This record gives sequence, C-alpha cells and structure tokens, in this order.
Amino acid sequence: MRRYQRISVLCLLTLSILFAVSIDAGTKKSLGARTIVPPCPVWVIGSYDSTGAPNMMTASWVGICCSDPPSVTVSLAKARYSYGNIEACRAFTVNIPSVAYAKETAFFGSVSGRNVDKLAATGLTPVGSELVNAPYLAEFPLVVECRLVQTVEVGSHTMFIGEIVDVKANEDILEEGDRLDPLKLQSFLFFPGSGNFYSTGGSIGSIRDLQAEIER
Amino acid sequence: MRRYQRISVLCLLTLSILFAVSIDAGTKKSLGARTIVPPCPVWVIGSYDSTGAPNMMTASWVGICCSDPPSVTVSLAKARYSYGNIEACRAFTVNIPSVAYAKETAFFGSVSGRNVDKLAATGLTPVGSELVNAPYLAEFPLVVECRLVQTVEVGSHTMFIGEIVDVKANEDILEEGDRLDPLKLQSFLFFPGSGNFYSTGGSIGSIRDLQAEIER
Repeated sequence: MRRYQRISVLCLLTLSILFAVSIDAGTKKSLGARTIVPPCPVWVIGSYDSTGAPNMMTASWVGICCSDPPSVTVSLAKARYSYGNIEACRAFTVNIPSVAYAKETAFFGSVSGRNVDKLAATGLTPVGSELVNAPYLAEFPLVVECRLVQTVEVGSHTMFIGEIVDVKANEDILEEGDRLDPLKLQSFLFFPGSGNFYSTGGSIGSIRDLQAEIER
Repeated sequence: MRRYQRISVLCLLTLSILFAVSIDAGTKKSLGARTIVPPCPVWVIGSYDSTGAPNMMTASWVGICCSDPPSVTVSLAKARYSYGNIEACRAFTVNIPSVAYAKETAFFGSVSGRNVDKLAATGLTPVGSELVNAPYLAEFPLVVECRLVQTVEVGSHTMFIGEIVDVKANEDILEEGDRLDPLKLQSFLFFPGSGNFYSTGGSIGSIRDLQAEIER
C-alpha cells in the first residue's frame, strides 16, 4: 500500500508541475527564431550607381544607432543594387515618405534599379546632395544625408552605418522651434509578417506625464 | 553703353540663379546633423544585473539588422545600467509593449535600475528565459529572446547585435497561420523631437496592391 501511496503522490506532483508549466507556456506561443520584431520604420535609401544614375530602394531593417556622432544603420543584402552603390560612393540618403507616397515607396521596394529606372517610373525628382555623394527625393517631407563610416557583416545582411551630415525638412511638418510634428509628417510603418503598410495614429500621451503616473 | 549692357545681363543672370537656388532650398529647411530619423520603435530591453536581479529599460535606437541569422541591434550608451548587464550575461530580451503598458514603458525609460527596482515599482512580472540568460515580461504581448553575438562601437553608443533565438507571442495578437496582427498588437512609436508616444494607425493598403498601382 505504502508503495502505491508513494506512486500516487509522485503522479499527482508530476501532474501538478505539468499543469503549472502548461499554464505558463500557454500564455505565450513560440513562433521560432524569426525577425518578428515590430514596429519597423519605412525608409527609402538614395544612392548613385556606377553610371551616376540615382536609385531609390525601400528598407525596413534600419534604425538610429548613435547620438554622437548622430548615426543611422541600414542593413542590406549583398544582392541589392544599392549595396554596391553605397559601398562605392561611401554615402547614402534616408528619405522618409508620407502616406501620400505609399505607392512609390512600395514600388521602390519591389523592383531592382539594376533593371528599372525607378525614378522615371514614379516621376519623383532626385536632388543631388551638396554634402554627400548621394541623391535625395524632392517630394518626400524629410530627408537625411549620410556619409558611410562603417560596415558590419552580420550574416545575410551587411549593416551600413552612416553618420548624419544634415537633416532637411519641409517647413509644413515642423512646429515652433523646428520640432517635428509626427501627425503632419504622416510617416508609416511595416510589420514583419503583415503584407500591409500601417499609418501613424494619434498621440497616446506625453512621455513625462506617463512616467509620472508610475512615480506617483 | 556696351559695358553697362554686359553688367546688366550679368546682374540679371546672377539674380535668376540666386532666385532658382532659393526656390530649391526654400522647399526644405536644414535642421543640422541631428538624430531626427523617424519613426522609431519602442522596445523594452530585459537583462539581469550582477546580483541576478531582472531589469528593464526602454530603447528606441534599435532595429532588425539581419534576416539570416535573424538578428536585432540595440544601441546603448556606456552609462546605462543595462550596458554592463548585457555585456556580462551575453544576452537580452526585446519586449514589445502594447498601448496598455505605455505608462510602464515611459517609466522604464526614465529611471535607472541602478537606483530603482523597476519591476517592483511597476508590478510587472519578469519571467526567466529558458533559452538565454535574460528575463522577459509576462504581460507584454510579444517578446524576443536574443543572445549577444557582436558589439560595435559607434561613438556615444555601442550597438549590441543579438541573434534571435525565439519569438513568443500572446495568442490573441496572432491571425491565422501565426501571422502577427498589428492592430491587435497595438505597439507604439517614438518620434525624436517629440515628447509624446504615438499609436499605430490603420492599414493604408496592401504593399502588393500599392506597388501594382505604379507598375500598371
């Protein structure tokens, strides 16, 4: 009998542990090792090819990566036409589209400048930067001129780290004191795993006020 | 007389050129070399300190940086408490907040884990990852477990490149086929130069349909 009691107790314990683990694991589903880390910015990267022709490509594996010097990182696969352009010219621009240019931005990300003159196809206007050897888009509300300072191999992608030389904005997206107004900029987003672009919604509150609610 | 005519023509030419340049430059205002490159994700980075206590900090100088191996980059200043934690543990988590956790996220970005037990202050629940030596947040809808594979010095900030080991999601943010639904996730954004957080808006269309509008 004692032996059966012991076995029963052990069985109960095991079941309890399995139940507790299943509750914990049940709250989150494992999706595996995938690049599902949203939200992702949508930036259009400007460069010159070896003939001096301007090219634009859309990238979302991007981000700000340093405050001083102000720098951004843009990850590109070696097969991309822009890869060789940026490596050769040691410069690129970041062009932030507003929702008005969602079509052109989708197109810039879907075809290669190796085969198509994307600027002719979209009718958008490249402007030669006077600060770096790369073109920016006249129509986009915010453009950032960068000189390439470092390249980092990660795997399928290479990170191009660009030091920001200047940021140029359309006046109508700026508030007083040249502060950016996100609702006037109307930039948009990419979510890995979703086939849509998403807009920027409204403010959900001042960061200072939000943190004060916890500190209180 | 001829001399005056020549001077007049030269003056007119110069004025025309200046006028043309001012029109071109007038469309965009130079803001200088600043990190105004939006939109920026809002990620909460989880790590253990030297006593094994879990810590969370909010970061926006971040991004996906490689598809294979799936990797993210998180830039931190050396002064940050999480800097030493990640360096020592060779691991971190990325926790994506929904708007329901905007207060906690603002707080995680406003005080240092050196002085404050941020998890006690917010009442959120750290869960020890079974895959990497870092904690994630039970309450946040999407968490990403990373092992540190590379550090890159840029200037004021160091890029921590983490290989994604697993992504875990609450089932209620997933559509059929485990695809992420951005509108259910309700992640939010930071815009450099603005003191607010901003929500994710609605879909502005399928990327495939948008590009087809140009190709047509």
